Amino acid sequence: MKTLFKLLFCIVIVAGVLSEAYAQFSSSDEAIRYRQSVMFLMSQHFGRMGAMVKEEIPYNKEAFIGNATVVETLSRLPWEAFMVPGSDKGDTALKSSAFEQKAKLNETIQTFEKQTAKLAGTAKSGAFSAIKAQFGEVAKSCKACHTQFRKG
Amino acid sequence: MKTLFKLLFCIVIVAGVLSEAYAQFSSSDEAIRYRQSVMFLMSQHFGRMGAMVKEEIPYNKEAFIGNATVVETLSRLPWEAFMVPGSDKGDTALKSSAFEQKAKLNETIQTFEKQTAKLAGTAKSGAFSAIKAQFGEVAKSCKACHTQFRKG
Repeated sequence: MKTLFKLLFCIVIVAGVLSEAYAQFSSSDEAIRYRQSVMFLMSQHFGRMGAMVKEEIPYNKEAFIGNATVVETLSRLPWEAFMVPGSDKGDTALKSSAFEQKAKLNETIQTFEKQTAKLAGTAKSGAFSAIKAQFGEVAKSCKACHTQFRKG
Repeated sequence: MKTLFKLLFCIVIVAGVLSEAYAQFSSSDEAIRYRQSVMFLMSQHFGRMGAMVKEEIPYNKEAFIGNATVVETLSRLPWEAFMVPGSDKGDTALKSSAFEQKAKLNETIQTFEKQTAKLAGTAKSGAFSAIKAQFGEVAKSCKACHTQFRKG
Protein backbone atom coordinates (compact mmCIF):
# COMPACT_ATOMS: atom_id res chain seq x y z
CA MET A 1 0.00 0.00 0.00
CA LYS A 2 2.87 2.33 0.92
CA THR A 3 4.52 1.56 -2.43
CA LEU A 4 1.27 2.36 -4.23
CA PHE A 5 1.05 5.73 -2.47
CA LYS A 6 4.67 6.46 -3.33
CA LEU A 7 4.00 5.58 -6.96
CA LEU A 8 0.87 7.77 -7.11
CA PHE A 9 2.79 10.60 -5.46
CA CYS A 10 5.55 10.33 -8.07
CA ILE A 11 3.01 10.29 -10.91
CA VAL A 12 1.38 13.46 -9.57
CA ILE A 13 4.76 15.22 -9.26
CA VAL A 14 5.90 14.19 -12.73
CA ALA A 15 2.53 15.18 -14.27
CA GLY A 16 2.79 18.55 -12.52
CA VAL A 17 6.31 19.22 -13.79
CA LEU A 18 5.43 18.14 -17.33
CA SER A 19 2.19 20.13 -17.51
CA GLU A 20 4.06 23.22 -16.33
CA ALA A 21 6.60 22.72 -19.10
CA TYR A 22 3.96 22.07 -21.77
CA ALA A 23 1.98 25.09 -20.60
CA GLN A 24 4.80 27.32 -21.86
CA PHE A 25 3.71 26.59 -25.44
CA SER A 26 0.31 27.17 -26.97
CA SER A 27 0.82 24.42 -29.58
CA SER A 28 3.31 21.80 -30.73
CA ASP A 29 4.16 24.05 -33.70
CA GLU A 30 5.10 26.83 -31.29
CA ALA A 31 7.34 24.40 -29.39
CA ILE A 32 8.99 23.38 -32.67
CA ARG A 33 9.57 27.02 -33.63
CA TYR A 34 10.97 27.73 -30.17
CA ARG A 35 13.53 24.92 -30.23
CA GLN A 36 14.46 25.60 -33.86
CA SER A 37 15.10 29.26 -32.98
CA VAL A 38 17.39 28.22 -30.12
CA MET A 39 19.18 25.63 -32.26
CA PHE A 40 19.70 28.11 -35.11
CA LEU A 41 21.17 30.72 -32.78
CA MET A 42 23.41 28.13 -31.13
CA SER A 43 24.65 26.98 -34.53
CA GLN A 44 25.42 30.59 -35.50
CA HIS A 45 27.42 31.34 -32.36
CA PHE A 46 29.04 27.91 -32.41
CA GLY A 47 30.02 28.55 -36.04
CA ARG A 48 31.65 31.86 -35.08
CA MET A 49 33.78 30.05 -32.51
CA GLY A 50 34.46 27.29 -35.02
CA ALA A 51 35.89 29.79 -37.49
CA MET A 52 38.41 30.86 -34.80
CA VAL A 53 39.21 27.29 -33.77
CA LYS A 54 39.85 26.35 -37.40
CA GLU A 55 41.90 29.55 -37.70
CA GLU A 56 39.81 30.79 -40.63
CA ILE A 57 39.53 34.09 -38.76
CA PRO A 58 41.88 35.47 -36.06
CA TYR A 59 41.26 34.32 -32.50
CA ASN A 60 39.67 37.15 -30.53
CA LYS A 61 39.38 36.35 -26.84
CA GLU A 62 36.51 38.74 -26.08
CA ALA A 63 34.48 37.62 -29.10
CA PHE A 64 35.09 33.98 -28.19
CA ILE A 65 33.93 34.54 -24.59
CA GLY A 66 30.85 36.36 -25.89
CA ASN A 67 29.91 33.51 -28.20
CA ALA A 68 30.63 30.81 -25.61
CA THR A 69 28.51 32.64 -23.02
CA VAL A 70 25.58 32.99 -25.42
CA VAL A 71 25.79 29.28 -26.27
CA GLU A 72 25.92 28.41 -22.56
CA THR A 73 22.73 30.45 -21.90
CA LEU A 74 20.97 28.99 -24.94
CA SER A 75 22.06 25.44 -24.06
CA ARG A 76 19.62 25.40 -21.14
CA LEU A 77 16.57 26.61 -23.03
CA PRO A 78 15.23 24.24 -25.66
CA TRP A 79 14.67 21.00 -23.78
CA GLU A 80 11.16 21.48 -22.44
CA ALA A 81 10.11 22.21 -26.02
CA PHE A 82 11.41 18.75 -26.95
CA MET A 83 8.97 17.15 -24.52
CA VAL A 84 5.77 18.60 -26.01
CA PRO A 85 3.51 15.80 -27.26
CA GLY A 86 3.01 15.81 -31.01
CA SER A 87 6.09 17.96 -31.60
CA ASP A 88 7.74 15.07 -33.46
CA LYS A 89 5.22 15.71 -36.27
CA GLY A 90 5.29 18.57 -38.77
CA ASP A 91 8.26 20.76 -39.70
CA THR A 92 10.80 19.08 -37.45
CA ALA A 93 13.80 16.79 -37.60
CA LEU A 94 13.07 15.26 -34.18
CA LYS A 95 12.86 11.47 -34.21
CA SER A 96 9.78 10.07 -32.45
CA SER A 97 12.11 7.70 -30.61
CA ALA A 98 13.12 10.66 -28.41
CA PHE A 99 9.82 10.26 -26.55
CA GLU A 100 10.50 6.59 -25.91
CA GLN A 101 14.08 7.08 -24.78
CA LYS A 102 13.77 10.00 -22.40
CA ALA A 103 16.49 8.75 -20.06
CA LYS A 104 18.93 8.54 -22.95
CA LEU A 105 17.82 11.92 -24.29
CA ASN A 106 18.29 13.50 -20.86
CA GLU A 107 21.75 12.00 -20.60
CA THR A 108 22.84 13.57 -23.91
CA ILE A 109 21.26 16.90 -22.89
CA GLN A 110 23.11 16.94 -19.57
CA THR A 111 26.42 16.14 -21.23
CA PHE A 112 25.87 18.96 -23.73
CA GLU A 113 24.98 21.49 -21.00
CA LYS A 114 28.02 20.45 -18.97
CA GLN A 115 30.37 20.76 -21.93
CA THR A 116 29.05 24.18 -23.02
CA ALA A 117 29.38 25.50 -19.46
CA LYS A 118 32.94 24.18 -19.39
CA LEU A 119 33.68 25.88 -22.71
CA ALA A 120 32.42 29.23 -21.38
CA GLY A 121 34.77 28.82 -18.40
CA THR A 122 37.75 27.73 -20.50
CA ALA A 123 37.13 30.65 -22.90
CA LYS A 124 37.66 33.06 -20.00
CA SER A 125 40.70 31.53 -18.37
CA GLY A 126 42.23 28.93 -20.65
CA ALA A 127 44.97 28.87 -23.25
CA PHE A 128 43.88 28.68 -26.89
CA SER A 129 44.93 25.02 -27.06
CA ALA A 130 42.63 24.19 -24.11
CA ILE A 131 39.81 26.20 -25.71
CA LYS A 132 40.22 24.28 -28.96
CA ALA A 133 40.11 20.95 -27.11
CA GLN A 134 36.99 21.95 -25.16
CA PHE A 135 35.32 23.22 -28.34
CA GLY A 136 35.86 19.70 -29.69
CA GLU A 137 34.14 18.21 -26.64
CA VAL A 138 31.09 20.43 -27.22
CA ALA A 139 31.00 19.42 -30.89
CA LYS A 140 31.11 15.76 -29.85
CA SER A 141 28.18 16.26 -27.46
CA CYS A 142 26.14 17.97 -30.22
CA LYS A 143 26.83 15.08 -32.55
CA ALA A 144 25.99 12.42 -29.97
CA CYS A 145 22.47 13.82 -29.60
CA HIS A 146 21.94 14.52 -33.32
CA THR A 147 23.03 11.01 -34.28
CA GLN A 148 20.50 9.47 -31.92
CA PHE A 149 17.56 11.83 -32.08
CA ARG A 150 17.71 13.90 -35.28
CA LYS A 151 16.39 12.65 -38.61
CA GLY A 152 18.65 12.67 -41.68
CA MET B 1 43.05 69.07 -44.75
CA LYS B 2 43.08 67.92 -41.13
CA THR B 3 39.27 67.68 -41.22
CA LEU B 4 39.46 65.59 -44.37
CA PHE B 5 41.91 63.18 -42.73
CA LYS B 6 39.67 62.92 -39.67
CA LEU B 7 36.70 62.23 -41.90
CA LEU B 8 38.54 59.55 -43.86
CA PHE B 9 39.77 58.00 -40.61
CA CYS B 10 36.18 57.82 -39.31
CA ILE B 11 34.94 56.26 -42.54
CA VAL B 12 37.64 53.58 -42.35
CA ILE B 13 36.76 52.81 -38.71
CA VAL B 14 33.02 52.67 -39.37
CA ALA B 15 33.53 50.52 -42.47
CA GLY B 16 35.71 48.17 -40.43
CA VAL B 17 33.16 47.80 -37.66
CA LEU B 18 30.31 47.29 -40.12
CA SER B 19 32.15 44.78 -42.29
CA GLU B 20 32.99 42.76 -39.16
CA ALA B 21 29.29 42.75 -38.23
CA TYR B 22 28.16 41.81 -41.72
CA ALA B 23 30.74 39.07 -41.91
CA GLN B 24 28.83 37.20 -39.21
CA PHE B 25 26.15 36.33 -41.77
CA SER B 26 26.57 34.52 -45.05
CA SER B 27 23.51 36.19 -46.58
CA SER B 28 20.77 38.72 -45.83
CA ASP B 29 18.32 35.81 -45.45
CA GLU B 30 20.54 34.34 -42.74
CA ALA B 31 20.57 37.71 -40.96
CA ILE B 32 16.76 37.83 -41.17
CA ARG B 33 16.47 34.32 -39.76
CA TYR B 34 18.90 35.21 -36.98
CA ARG B 35 17.03 38.29 -35.81
CA GLN B 36 13.63 36.59 -36.18
CA SER B 37 14.90 33.72 -34.00
CA VAL B 38 16.03 36.17 -31.32
CA MET B 39 12.77 38.17 -31.54
CA PHE B 40 10.64 35.02 -31.31
CA LEU B 41 12.51 33.80 -28.23
CA MET B 42 12.29 37.22 -26.60
CA SER B 43 8.54 37.34 -27.26
CA GLN B 44 8.14 33.88 -25.69
CA HIS B 45 10.04 34.75 -22.51
CA PHE B 46 8.48 38.20 -22.38
CA GLY B 47 5.05 36.55 -22.68
CA ARG B 48 5.84 34.24 -19.76
CA MET B 49 6.61 37.26 -17.61
CA GLY B 50 3.53 39.04 -18.96
CA ALA B 51 1.30 36.19 -17.81
CA MET B 52 2.63 36.73 -14.26
CA VAL B 53 2.37 40.51 -14.45
CA LYS B 54 -1.25 40.22 -15.63
CA GLU B 55 -1.77 37.65 -12.85
CA GLU B 56 -3.00 35.03 -15.31
CA ILE B 57 -0.56 32.63 -13.65
CA PRO B 58 0.93 32.84 -10.14
CA TYR B 59 4.02 35.03 -9.71
CA ASN B 60 7.07 32.81 -9.32
CA LYS B 61 10.18 34.79 -8.43
CA GLU B 62 12.71 32.26 -9.72
CA ALA B 63 10.85 31.77 -13.00
CA PHE B 64 10.54 35.53 -13.44
CA ILE B 65 14.28 36.03 -12.85
CA GLY B 66 15.03 33.24 -15.33
CA ASN B 67 12.89 34.81 -18.04
CA ALA B 68 14.16 38.33 -17.38
CA THR B 69 17.78 37.12 -17.54
CA VAL B 70 17.21 35.31 -20.83
CA VAL B 71 15.56 38.43 -22.31
CA GLU B 72 18.48 40.56 -21.09
CA THR B 73 20.99 38.25 -22.82
CA LEU B 74 18.92 38.10 -26.01
CA SER B 75 18.37 41.88 -26.02
CA ARG B 76 22.01 42.43 -26.97
CA LEU B 77 22.10 40.00 -29.89
CA PRO B 78 19.98 40.91 -32.88
CA TRP B 79 21.12 44.41 -33.79
CA GLU B 80 24.04 43.69 -36.08
CA ALA B 81 21.64 41.51 -38.09
CA PHE B 82 19.47 44.59 -38.59
CA MET B 83 22.35 46.37 -40.29
CA VAL B 84 22.92 43.84 -43.06
CA PRO B 85 22.32 45.44 -46.47
CA GLY B 86 19.34 43.98 -48.32
CA SER B 87 17.86 42.48 -45.17
CA ASP B 88 14.86 44.81 -45.49
CA LYS B 89 13.79 42.68 -48.49
CA GLY B 90 12.25 39.22 -48.38
CA ASP B 91 10.53 37.54 -45.43
CA THR B 92 10.89 40.42 -43.00
CA ALA B 93 8.83 43.12 -41.32
CA LEU B 94 11.76 45.56 -41.18
CA LYS B 95 11.00 48.95 -42.72
CA SER B 96 13.65 50.17 -45.17
CA SER B 97 13.61 53.50 -43.32
CA ALA B 98 15.65 51.80 -40.54
CA PHE B 99 18.72 52.11 -42.80
CA GLU B 100 18.11 55.81 -43.29
CA GLN B 101 17.50 56.59 -39.63
CA LYS B 102 20.32 54.71 -37.95
CA ALA B 103 20.75 57.25 -35.16
CA LYS B 104 17.08 56.97 -34.26
CA LEU B 105 17.21 53.16 -34.52
CA ASN B 106 20.26 53.06 -32.24
CA GLU B 107 18.51 55.26 -29.73
CA THR B 108 15.51 52.89 -29.50
CA ILE B 109 17.87 49.90 -29.28
CA GLN B 110 19.83 51.46 -26.43
CA THR B 111 16.67 52.31 -24.52
CA PHE B 112 15.42 48.73 -24.93
CA GLU B 113 18.73 47.22 -23.76
CA LYS B 114 18.79 49.54 -20.76
CA GLN B 115 15.21 48.73 -19.78
CA THR B 116 15.66 44.93 -20.11
CA ALA B 117 18.85 45.09 -18.00
CA LYS B 118 16.92 47.08 -15.39
CA LEU B 119 14.10 44.52 -15.43
CA ALA B 120 16.58 41.68 -14.81
CA GLY B 121 17.92 43.63 -11.81
CA THR B 122 14.47 44.51 -10.46
CA ALA B 123 13.34 40.88 -10.87
CA LYS B 124 16.11 39.85 -8.46
CA SER B 125 15.73 42.46 -5.78
CA GLY B 126 12.49 44.37 -6.30
CA ALA B 127 8.93 44.09 -4.95
CA PHE B 128 6.32 42.73 -7.34
CA SER B 129 4.87 46.24 -7.81
CA ALA B 130 8.29 47.52 -8.94
CA ILE B 131 8.72 44.51 -11.24
CA LYS B 132 5.32 45.19 -12.83
CA ALA B 133 6.22 48.85 -13.39
CA GLN B 134 9.58 47.94 -14.95
CA PHE B 135 7.94 45.30 -17.13
CA GLY B 136 5.76 48.13 -18.44
CA GLU B 137 8.86 50.18 -19.27
CA VAL B 138 10.29 47.30 -21.31
CA ALA B 139 6.98 46.89 -23.14
CA LYS B 140 7.03 50.62 -23.96
CA SER B 141 10.55 50.35 -25.36
CA CYS B 142 9.55 47.37 -27.55
CA LYS B 143 6.59 49.31 -28.89
CA ALA B 144 8.61 52.48 -29.56
CA CYS B 145 10.89 50.56 -31.93
CA HIS B 146 8.13 48.49 -33.54
CA THR B 147 6.02 51.58 -34.25
CA GLN B 148 8.91 53.26 -36.02
CA PHE B 149 10.67 50.41 -37.76
CA ARG B 150 8.31 47.43 -38.12
CA LYS B 151 5.83 47.08 -40.95
CA GLY B 152 2.15 46.49 -40.18
